[in-house]
Amino acid sequence: GTGADNDLYINQAVVFIEDAIQYRSINHRVDSRSLWLYRWYYSRACQWILSLTITIILALAFIEKPSSLTITSDVRYRLPAWNPPCGLTESIELLCLLVFMVDVSVKSYLIGWEEFWKNKWLVAYILTLIVSLADWIVSLSFFCTEDVRIRRILRPFFLLQNSSMMKKTLKSINSTLPEMASVVLLLAVHLSLFTMFAMLLFARTKDGQQDKEWVVYFRNLPDSLTSLLVLLTTANNPDVMIPAYSKNRAYSIFFILFTVLGNLFLMNLLTAIIYNQFRGYLLKSVQSSLFRRRLGIRAAFEVLSSLRETPANTQQPHVSFGALVQVLQKVEMDSRCKQAIMRSLEMCSCDQLSAAQFQKLFEELDKDAIKQHPPSPEYQSSFMQKMQFASGHPYFGYLGNVVALANIVSICVVLVMDADKQPSERDDFFLGAINCFFILYYLLEMLLKILAMGLKRYLSYPSNRFDGLLTVILLVLEVATFAVYGFPHPGWRPEFLGLLSLWDMVRLVNMLIVFRFLRIIPNMKFMALVVTTLLDLVKNLRAFAGILVVVFYAFAITGIMLFKGAVVPLGNISAVNTTYGNGTLQCGTYEQLEYWPNNFDDFAVMKNVISWLSLVTFRLRLFTAYLLSVNLICRWAKIYFVAWWLISSVIWVNLFVALLLENFIHKWDRRCHREPISDIEYQRTVELMFRDVLEEPTEEELMEKLHQHPHLQLCR
Amino acid sequence: GTGADNDLYINQAVVFIEDAIQYRSINHRVDSRSLWLYRWYYSRACQWILSLTITIILALAFIEKPSSLTITSDVRYRLPAWNPPCGLTESIELLCLLVFMVDVSVKSYLIGWEEFWKNKWLVAYILTLIVSLADWIVSLSFFCTEDVRIRRILRPFFLLQNSSMMKKTLKSINSTLPEMASVVLLLAVHLSLFTMFAMLLFARTKDGQQDKEWVVYFRNLPDSLTSLLVLLTTANNPDVMIPAYSKNRAYSIFFILFTVLGNLFLMNLLTAIIYNQFRGYLLKSVQSSLFRRRLGIRAAFEVLSSLRETPANTQQPHVSFGALVQVLQKVEMDSRCKQAIMRSLEMCSCDQLSAAQFQKLFEELDKDAIKQHPPSPEYQSSFMQKMQFASGHPYFGYLGNVVALANIVSICVVLVMDADKQPSERDDFFLGAINCFFILYYLLEMLLKILAMGLKRYLSYPSNRFDGLLTVILLVLEVATFAVYGFPHPGWRPEFLGLLSLWDMVRLVNMLIVFRFLRIIPNMKFMALVVTTLLDLVKNLRAFAGILVVVFYAFAITGIMLFKGAVVPLGNISAVNTTYGNGTLQCGTYEQLEYWPNNFDDFAVMKNVISWLSLVTFRLRLFTAYLLSVNLICRWAKIYFVAWWLISSVIWVNLFVALLLENFIHKWDRRCHREPISDIEYQRTVELMFRDVLEEPTEEELMEKLHQHPHLQLCR
Repeated sequence: GTGADNDLYINQAVVFIEDAIQYRSINHRVDSRSLWLYRWYYSRACQWILSLTITIILALAFIEKPSSLTITSDVRYRLPAWNPPCGLTESIELLCLLVFMVDVSVKSYLIGWEEFWKNKWLVAYILTLIVSLADWIVSLSFFCTEDVRIRRILRPFFLLQNSSMMKKTLKSINSTLPEMASVVLLLAVHLSLFTMFAMLLFARTKDGQQDKEWVVYFRNLPDSLTSLLVLLTTANNPDVMIPAYSKNRAYSIFFILFTVLGNLFLMNLLTAIIYNQFRGYLLKSVQSSLFRRRLGIRAAFEVLSSLRETPANTQQPHVSFGALVQVLQKVEMDSRCKQAIMRSLEMCSCDQLSAAQFQKLFEELDKDAIKQHPPSPEYQSSFMQKMQFASGHPYFGYLGNVVALANIVSICVVLVMDADKQPSERDDFFLGAINCFFILYYLLEMLLKILAMGLKRYLSYPSNRFDGLLTVILLVLEVATFAVYGFPHPGWRPEFLGLLSLWDMVRLVNMLIVFRFLRIIPNMKFMALVVTTLLDLVKNLRAFAGILVVVFYAFAITGIMLFKGAVVPLGNISAVNTTYGNGTLQCGTYEQLEYWPNNFDDFAVMKNVISWLSLVTFRLRLFTAYLLSVNLICRWAKIYFVAWWLISSVIWVNLFVALLLENFIHKWDRRCHREPISDIEYQRTVELMFRDVLEEPTEEELMEKLHQHPHLQLCR
Repeated sequence: GTGADNDLYINQAVVFIEDAIQYRSINHRVDSRSLWLYRWYYSRACQWILSLTITIILALAFIEKPSSLTITSDVRYRLPAWNPPCGLTESIELLCLLVFMVDVSVKSYLIGWEEFWKNKWLVAYILTLIVSLADWIVSLSFFCTEDVRIRRILRPFFLLQNSSMMKKTLKSINSTLPEMASVVLLLAVHLSLFTMFAMLLFARTKDGQQDKEWVVYFRNLPDSLTSLLVLLTTANNPDVMIPAYSKNRAYSIFFILFTVLGNLFLMNLLTAIIYNQFRGYLLKSVQSSLFRRRLGIRAAFEVLSSLRETPANTQQPHVSFGALVQVLQKVEMDSRCKQAIMRSLEMCSCDQLSAAQFQKLFEELDKDAIKQHPPSPEYQSSFMQKMQFASGHPYFGYLGNVVALANIVSICVVLVMDADKQPSERDDFFLGAINCFFILYYLLEMLLKILAMGLKRYLSYPSNRFDGLLTVILLVLEVATFAVYGFPHPGWRPEFLGLLSLWDMVRLVNMLIVFRFLRIIPNMKFMALVVTTLLDLVKNLRAFAGILVVVFYAFAITGIMLFKGAVVPLGNISAVNTTYGNGTLQCGTYEQLEYWPNNFDDFAVMKNVISWLSLVTFRLRLFTAYLLSVNLICRWAKIYFVAWWLISSVIWVNLFVALLLENFIHKWDRRCHREPISDIEYQRTVELMFRDVLEEPTEEELMEKLHQHPHLQLCR
């Protein structure tokens, strides 16, 4: 009946507007049941469950069989880790996989079977699930004793497919690949030509004493290639040139040429290329989001306009006031926006809305969210007014900064004075006393500020929240210290009591004080700009970080599979007695440098791997040499590490630099345009940052897209 | 009389046009004698003498007292170097200083005494000269025995003041300094806060065995600061975190946080800031060059228009045809340009030229120099025509590349096979034979190409010149080898004869063949783009390189003064018997790593310093520790190296990246716009690259500037 039809149209409009708000695609089924399923699937609870499931399945790697639940990863000290019994992690995994199966079926159903086959991501999702399940069954049938578990490498895919931002970013990276490949090829040519040069230059001589360079670095083709590759990462500079340079000054020319061409030109060229490709990336992505929003709104308008067919105005489709109010009440959106839209709808006071008016109503969604701080309380007493004036004055804030600085300096002085003292000689009285004084001042400052601003206004500033929270923690710690150890007095050096020793308490308090010092940042104009840029960057970087996690995860799991147990401690050298150069250890080797904690025995290797992100000094050669010497299976080590260096250090870091440049330059340009308004904070998003340069999609584009919708049949 | 006046005006116009051609300022004296002096000063001979003088005075550092005239700089093997007798270098230096004195007087006279005091560069020039002369006198009165010679540090100033590009670049860098200083300040805050954290975190514990981290890296404030500063350069990653990480996995969080914040964010922020500041740099500099050119032309027009005062057209100043021809004949300029201007002047066939016509005439100067290759010879015989077609076909070029590749591969194979052979077992027959064959092919290829193209056309392509030159050298080497050692036959292993042994000859030939392989570059599209970008960059980079030389020079000289003789070889360890880890040398120290050639004993330290340009792995800590341990005077070592790291690695590398980005992005954008035309090569300059975006200066701007001229009195 028409009533059911009307309900359907209303529901469609509601869903399309919600799609527009969330920048989602509108290409899904639009019948009643599917709409219900769609709203259920994108409800907060469902999405939250899905995210939790992804987190759980990724986090499983930490407790799965080579579990990371030991305090140290040093093979010399490490106790056998607790390993979960067979079936525990596997059953959790099965639950997760079941959730993913539900997810993929709902998703596939919603976009329709025809669309499903065109969507490579969904097909890959299903394939991944099938492989994972098969691997899971194999795993259980071997009672968890098999080593190679493919499904662990596949896991990050679940993270990848769930984020449209990450998929978009991946597409961007993909389009940069040909250019990157060219530069990498150029690097390879550079490397191989110089390797041949080096082999000819540092050939074995008849005089055996002169060819140290040949023996150590250029013995054969793989050795020479590795030496120069590591020189490209600058990790063995200047070691690699010392023997030759010691023979003749002129040999340094070879190394300088290689470094200048490779490191300075080619490596930076990669940065330039990646930046050049990514220059428009943010803008393009924001532009397509805008298109999705306008399309959703337009689709809602179209379905609403077919609601009542009044033949009088078939030329100009219109939407009635009542239908729109009905829709708006059903839509889930930010209450501030909803109110603003309702208000402007009432002000318009028209019975029928044209497409343009409809679109204009929803522009409220694009607007800056202006955050108004609550007002300060007004006091009657003139004393209170004076107090309020004094504590509200900027100088009071500056005084607080000066006091914080003084505190830092005093801690620093005590640290320098105590540096060479034995722990038993240390006197904690001085620090205890001054910290007590400073914390009292911080408390006073907080109370005065609350008095001046009122609690609500005080808490509405992030800097005050940061300040206040740290002050409260410091106060609690200090009170706890006094409760356990009594008040400080000269020679105040009590023994261990309670949870933490006094010394640890004092250290903790000091660290928190150092941390609290960061409150000065907003006071320094340039620093504030830099910090806000960085914070913005972090927001925009989520997709990148996600992809990085995916890559890290895959590399870490592969590393564990390849090199697990490869690092074994030296036989009878006790941990403590290992002195340097005791005649048995060669300098510069893995053993001598005591790199024991750097192994691939559990998933916390990810941390190692992250700390190697600044891989310019990647100890590639060393580690590879060690792995090669220990275990013959590890012949893949070199390839693994070179791939890792290329992806993490070269490509990812350059992507990061490109994004940083993009963000920073936009921000910087913008800084000159508008002065910050004192009491109002704009909550800027990427979308808003680009608003001036974005192009509105034309009516024709929107309608063409709408007519391509696979499930929606428009009347006109 | 009027004749003399006319001559003066003609001469003024000539000089102004020459100024315009060379992008020089026109603010100099304009009376007859000064004009003569001005033309003499800017004549090719004079400028060449000045450049030579600057080169000589800079190069003196290599032969001055701690002279670099030894084969090795290794303190263990180095023989006492030949030092020039007192007075030799000093008298050369005096000559140079005299030339500079003439230079500064002429320059000061030409711009006029009033302008002189406003010009800080000239004042600094005179001061530098005075200080240098005083220092020179002191030096001679001590009979060259004094150690501190200030004038050596001042020398690079002479290079700096002679290049207007370098002065302009320095001004640009100067304007970036406030922002850079802010980021460096941010880095300093980051470093100091983390240092305090580290000192609190890795404090000395009561259990003496657990505090390895404290002992090695965080013993006191300077140690901690150094450890973290070096971690910022990533040179001691992961060494610095191993002891703590070995104790507890969680400690790695501290180091990861520090590295991510410092290396990834702050360091790259510096890149972003510098790039942002330099984005407009090239454009601005080209724009100001254009202004100078237009101003010079306009000034010439103005003086020529006041030549004959015909009262009929006082409203519209004009220049007569005859005067212009007279001026053009006197102007020194590119003959191609001169002819083109003369031609269009004749085509115009007007007796009087307005300002706009005059300006338009000289636009020829801005145009691309189109290089037309000479035509191929035309042969009558059909055999020759076929030969010509075959050798002119692109496939013939590809065949040449394939043969070159085959040659490289064969050399590579021989190298791999011979890698482990003793020199006495090596058989040079195989390589000798195949190289002989390949070189014959190269000769044939060259001859065929010359036949097809004719010698002139062949030589007009740079790739052919490169090819041909190497082929000729290879041929000469091969003929020489056969003349000395006879033709190759199995077991061809003759003893040492002549200048080079056969083995060295073969190696040299192989190296040249590897080098010749670079001819493939223009055949690969992307590579060609990259290489032309790099070549362009090198052109635009001259000013940067100059400033780098200035900084290097000053640092090298300071280094010599501070650390000369600081590196002394260990007492009784003979050079050859130094085995690693023989119980006396601690691992990772200067002595164990045998860094003996890295010392500050002579000026060739500049090479060291250059090879450290990729200073990310600067062995700062090691070198400083060594210098500190050896010599107490070297307490400045740390500050010296930190300054060096900041300037060369952080700031200069970032400047370089900024310039590379700027160049590459312009080039890349341009690539899409125009396809390369086959037979015509554009000789692009920076000025031409930006022609589309440049703004022409308005008439008002030009006239205002002209009226501000300190020496030229215009009638109107």
